[in-house]
This record gives sequence, C-alpha cells and structure tokens, in this order.
Amino acid sequence: MILALNTDLSCINEKEFSNKKNLKKFEQISNYLHSNAEWTGWVDYPKKVLKKLPKLEKLAYEVRKKADVLLVLGIGGSYLGAYAGLTAIEKKSKTEVLFAGLNFSYEEIEKKLLYCKDKEVYVNVISKSGTTTETMIAFEFVLKFLKKKYKKDFASHIVITTDKNKGYLNDFAKENNILSLEVPDNIGGRYSVLTDVGLFPFLCGGLDVKSLLGGAKKASVELSNISSENPAYRYSLSRYLLNTKKKKQVEVLSTFYPRLKNIGAWWMQLFAESEGKNKKGLFVSSLNFSTDLHSIGQFIQEGSPILFETFLSVNKISKDKSITSVGDKNPIKYLEGKTLQEINLGAELGTIEAHSSANVPIIKITINEINEENLGYLFYFFEYSCALSGLLLGIDPFNQPGVEAYKANMKKNLTK
Amino acid sequence: MILALNTDLSCINEKEFSNKKNLKKFEQISNYLHSNAEWTGWVDYPKKVLKKLPKLEKLAYEVRKKADVLLVLGIGGSYLGAYAGLTAIEKKSKTEVLFAGLNFSYEEIEKKLLYCKDKEVYVNVISKSGTTTETMIAFEFVLKFLKKKYKKDFASHIVITTDKNKGYLNDFAKENNILSLEVPDNIGGRYSVLTDVGLFPFLCGGLDVKSLLGGAKKASVELSNISSENPAYRYSLSRYLLNTKKKKQVEVLSTFYPRLKNIGAWWMQLFAESEGKNKKGLFVSSLNFSTDLHSIGQFIQEGSPILFETFLSVNKISKDKSITSVGDKNPIKYLEGKTLQEINLGAELGTIEAHSSANVPIIKITINEINEENLGYLFYFFEYSCALSGLLLGIDPFNQPGVEAYKANMKKNLTK
Repeated sequence: MILALNTDLSCINEKEFSNKKNLKKFEQISNYLHSNAEWTGWVDYPKKVLKKLPKLEKLAYEVRKKADVLLVLGIGGSYLGAYAGLTAIEKKSKTEVLFAGLNFSYEEIEKKLLYCKDKEVYVNVISKSGTTTETMIAFEFVLKFLKKKYKKDFASHIVITTDKNKGYLNDFAKENNILSLEVPDNIGGRYSVLTDVGLFPFLCGGLDVKSLLGGAKKASVELSNISSENPAYRYSLSRYLLNTKKKKQVEVLSTFYPRLKNIGAWWMQLFAESEGKNKKGLFVSSLNFSTDLHSIGQFIQEGSPILFETFLSVNKISKDKSITSVGDKNPIKYLEGKTLQEINLGAELGTIEAHSSANVPIIKITINEINEENLGYLFYFFEYSCALSGLLLGIDPFNQPGVEAYKANMKKNLTK
Repeated sequence: MILALNTDLSCINEKEFSNKKNLKKFEQISNYLHSNAEWTGWVDYPKKVLKKLPKLEKLAYEVRKKADVLLVLGIGGSYLGAYAGLTAIEKKSKTEVLFAGLNFSYEEIEKKLLYCKDKEVYVNVISKSGTTTETMIAFEFVLKFLKKKYKKDFASHIVITTDKNKGYLNDFAKENNILSLEVPDNIGGRYSVLTDVGLFPFLCGGLDVKSLLGGAKKASVELSNISSENPAYRYSLSRYLLNTKKKKQVEVLSTFYPRLKNIGAWWMQLFAESEGKNKKGLFVSSLNFSTDLHSIGQFIQEGSPILFETFLSVNKISKDKSITSVGDKNPIKYLEGKTLQEINLGAELGTIEAHSSANVPIIKITINEINEENLGYLFYFFEYSCALSGLLLGIDPFNQPGVEAYKANMKKNLTK
C-alpha cells in the first residue's frame, strides 16, 4: 500500500466508517465522478495521459538538452502543483525550473530576468483561458527579454500551455509558430497537476513522470473502490463529520518534512477553492513543523478549539545523519547516537500525542518515502478526496465563482 | 503619520471606538504595559537600545567587512523577525544573511553548509535558554564545519546571542572566548526583534538600524497615548469585538507586496503564541496576494463566514514599470500605460471591495513606503497591539505553556 491513513478523532465513532448509509452515499458520489460528468476529466486522466507521455518526454528532452533555466509563468493551479512536485522530489537537473507571474510586482519579474540574463532560457507560459492578468503581464516583459536576447529566434524558446482550441495564447502560438501543450477541456486548474500543466515542468526538472503517473493510476483504481478501509473515503468522511457534526472550522495540514511544504500550498488551493462556497467549507492552512510549532503550536495546543489537524508524514528519508560525540553538558546529549530522522519522528509522535491529549482530532497520512510514484498517488488521493468532500457537502467542487469578484472590480477600477 | 489604519467593519458600530468604557479599559492596560511588569521589557526598549547601538554597529561592521555569509541559527522568535525585516528591506550587502536550524532535517543543514563551503562564513547562534533542540542540533553540525574550515580560529567566526547570565550557550561562549550578545531578561522571543536577536542580523544585512529603532521609538511614544484615533487601540478593539461579539474565529493578514510576506509569518507567531490560550484566541493565517486570491480567495469570498481580513498595504514602491505597446488583441491591452504598482493598487482596491461586499470585515494598515523607519514602527505597532489584544482577552500574552507539551513528549519518546 502506497499511502496509509490513520485517525485519532476521539469525538467521532469508528462505526461511522462502516455505516452502510455513509458507504452507499460515497459509492454514489464515486460513481458520479466516474460518469464523465463535467469537470471530472481528471478522474481517469492518468491512464489516458500515460499513452501520450512519450511525445511529451521527447519535447522536454529537447528543452532539457539546451536550457539552463525553464521559466514557468502561471498562477494558482498553473503553478502550485508543479512547484510542489519539484520541491518534493528535487532531482539534480541541468535545467533549473523557476516560476514567475505570481503577483503584480515588477521587482519580482526583474529579479528573475536578471538571473536569466546570461543563461540559456526557455519559457513555459501556462494559462487555460489565455487571459490570466498576472501571467500575461509577466509574459509581456519576458517576451521583450526573449526578443532582445534571441532576436528572430525568440519563438523557439517558448512553450505555451493553454486551451487546445481557443483563446489569445492559442492564437499567439499559431501566429508565431510556437509549440503548444494542452490544458484538457474538462479539467479545472486546481485538478491539473497531472496534465501537461504539471508534467512538462516535472519532465524539465528531471522527474520520472512515468512513475508519477503510475502512482496516480494506481490511486485512480484503488480509491474508486469505496470501502471502510479506503483512505480517501476515510479522509473525506472524517473531514465532513468534524466540520458539520463537531463544528470544527479549520483544518491544518502539518508536516515535519521540508520537502513537502509546497504540497501544503497546493493542498490549500485545492480544498479552499473547491469547498469555500455557499457559506460552507473548512478554512485550511498548511504548517511546517517543527518551525511552526514555535508559532501556531501554542494555539493548536491551548487556543480556541476550532480546528483539527492532518499530518503528512514519511517513514524513510534519503539523507540522514547521526548526532555524534556531543559534550557532556550539551542539552542535546540525550540525542547522541540518534539520527535526525529518528529525532524528527520522535518530535512528530510527541506532537501528535500532545495535540491529541488536548482533544485536537488527528488524521495522519503516511507515505513510505518521497518518490515520484508515491507523489503521484498522493496528488490523486487529495484530488479525489477533495471532490468527494465537496460533493458530500452539497457544493460544486469544480467551479470558483468567488474568484471572479475581485477580477471584475479590478478591471472596473483600472478602466475608469 | 507613519502608519494609517482604516476599517470597513460594517458589523461593528463606529461608536465603540469613542466609547469611554473601552478607552478607559485600554488606558489601564497601556499603563500596565508601561509599569515595568514582567515580560514587558520590550515596551520601552527602543529608547534604551538606541544608546547601546554604536557598540553593536561596530561589531557588525567587523563581521560585514569579512563575511560573505552570516549563517543565523535560531527558530521561532529567534529568526522570524530578522527574516521578515531582511526580506522587507532587501539591502544590497556584501554579507548574505541565511537561516538554518528551523527543523530536524539533515538535508537542509547540509545544503546550507555546501553553499558556504568556499565562502567566508560567520555564524550567529540565537537561543535565549541555550537549550533549543533544533538550534543546538544545527549548531553541532555547523561547529564541526567551522572547526574543519578554520581550525583553532573557529571561535572567532561565532557570535552567540543568549541569556546574559546563564545557560549552556553562555557557558560555551565563555569557555571558548566567543563574542556574546544579549537576549534581555524580561523580553520573550516573539517580542525580541528589536533587541540584539534581530538587530545584529539586520546590521549584517546592511539595514539602517538607527532609523528602524527611530521608527520603533516613535511608535512607543505615539501608541501609548490611548485615543479613538490610536491605530493600535483601533486594531486591538476591532479584533476583540469581531472575535467575542461577532464570533469571527479567523484573522487573515493579506498583502499584495511580496517584500512583506515574511512580516506575515512573524505576525502569525506573535499573535498565535500570544493569544492562543485558555481555549481563546483567533486562528491567524497570512496570505500573499494576488497569488493566494487564486487559492484561499474563493473561501474568503463565498465560504464559511468565520473570518475577517487585515490588509497590509504600501502607497509607494521603489521599483516600478509601465505596460507599454501591447498587441491589440492582448487581453491586457486595457492596462497599457499603467504601471505595475498602479495595477497592484487597483487589484487591492478591487479585492477589498469584493470581500467587503461579501460582508467580510476589513481592516487596512498602510505604510507610505517600505523603509527601515516604517518597518520599525510596524514591528512595534504589532507588538503593542498584540499585548493590548491579549490582555483585553484576559490571557497572559507573554507566556507559551502549550509549546512545552510537544517538547516534553518528544524528550520522553527519544529517551525511552
């Protein structure tokens, strides 16, 4: 089993998970997700995209041969997944993958372009609609940079990931003979990490995408089978009951593994944007321990009892080292002979015990090690759990009408 | 005026701010803070430390002359303030200030040491108690690195910031003739950014600490004068009323300025660790816009109505640029001629309008520009507001008993 889920919920009866009504409800939702309904293209996509992978691998290979830097322009679902995966795996790669277009700061764009000045640069612009303001602004500056640096050859340094059939970026790619990748029709941004949106940056960063998709495919098969042991079922039902029956308002995703910190940021978008509708949903926040134990830790332990905690844990890590020959008076003398991962696991266990003893409901998700297969499984696990959670809550987990409000106001203010 | 505070709370009557009972209550709390009570050493510290500044400046000058890197080891209050300030001001400095000891990952320590391998390195170890596990573990590896690199001369590459009179690090400094700086007696970690803890890294990073302390001193004078226009009074009272009368459970601190993102992390620790006690307090989370508008934005706009939003804004920024000559069909054509900061302000205004129209109470804190004086004022403003908030809530804003729970469990687990 790639992913294990354990719970210490105290306030929720274990019988809820074998309750036939609950199982039946989830089976219905799961069937809906597999029924080709709108925006559920991601559900069976891992299988489909595996077939197209050799073509994408070849393209990435060509870029990797030449590029010192792949500069990815995208915001929200167009960067969080790729960023999360690249941080988690951190392969040595000739091509460094960087991200821009995440805000309206010229300083941030300038910093990146300055860094790229004397390097061989390729750019991947990602926007499904081809209209995303932050991305298109960054692209304007990057385009000027590329034209200056590569003259007539600028177009060969660009890869555009956008809607297959329409939009400004699609037209732009055609006009300039620029290579295009596809954001599939029925897959929303925050469910797109396992499409060209995430896969092309992953490949350029040296990740084994075949294994990643293999893990995701495995998850797509295993998690569609609803049973009391299905971790996506258990996670979604726990969240739902804690929210609606136990009035918990906040879920924190805590990890003791620095490599997983951007998985937290991706997870936040996935759940907040999927569930935060109709005055419903959990407020989500991702924490990095032990750093944040010296910060939000106090609130979790003794503050307002509005939250539950999901731990994202790993059994084995690749780089470890023991504490050796520490002076007798040194306060860490008692750790002598222990490796840092042993200490980390001890801290994690201690934290779970401490928070649990303060009646904080705990969910623990564990993968055996951080590798591509497990990461693919984890991405899919969260996507599937999120869709189950949203549909259970009675909201549409695939739209984001609230994100349009600030954009409309902004446009109004700036065209005055 | 260095800092302006505006509110659009809708559900709170403006009369609350001129209410004599409220003003009287805050005067009492403010007087308490100035009465030399335990852990209030930070209240009048900006004045005091200004006198000692030349000595610290001289020491930092000596380090800066030589160091390529100052590696700061510390966690929680021993790094968040310094990190926030250095990110906000980002002075060009020969000496790069890096941070380690924030977790139990050997990989993270190794990465930093590898980076420092061929550089001239100085190390600042910060721990008031001298027993902080993460810091002391990192220090063990760093010490071995320094001994290997500088042989007998290793001690001259270390600056220790710890308790003036006691603790392992204090002893270690004396034994090895290492320079020591002081964490003052009656100032807790999260209120320590304006002591040697933050000031030494600031000076090594090239910040104008005299201006910073000047701003803080100004704040210490202005904010102690409780009136209906005092921004610390308005901020604390708003938070209190939104939490206790309007049942808001979450405060998000949102900023459209990438330079201020680590102020958010520092602010989170300050408030969560100060207020999260006796089952009370607001859950706090800091957001970076516009990035997080494509993430938590949906929840704020349409999700569970449990939160209010505090914006941290800036009028003028130093680096800006216009959008010029965009193609006719380009979706950002309407932004032609606008600078990125104009667009940023338009997005901020649009967001405030959108969230406000969804009945999210809004507080807006504005500084004119990001410089040392304003940053010093801002640090002090938040510290003072936090102390006022905590005392108003009836908890002790200066202790952190809940942080000990995981540490005790961890020690128990690892000495089994």
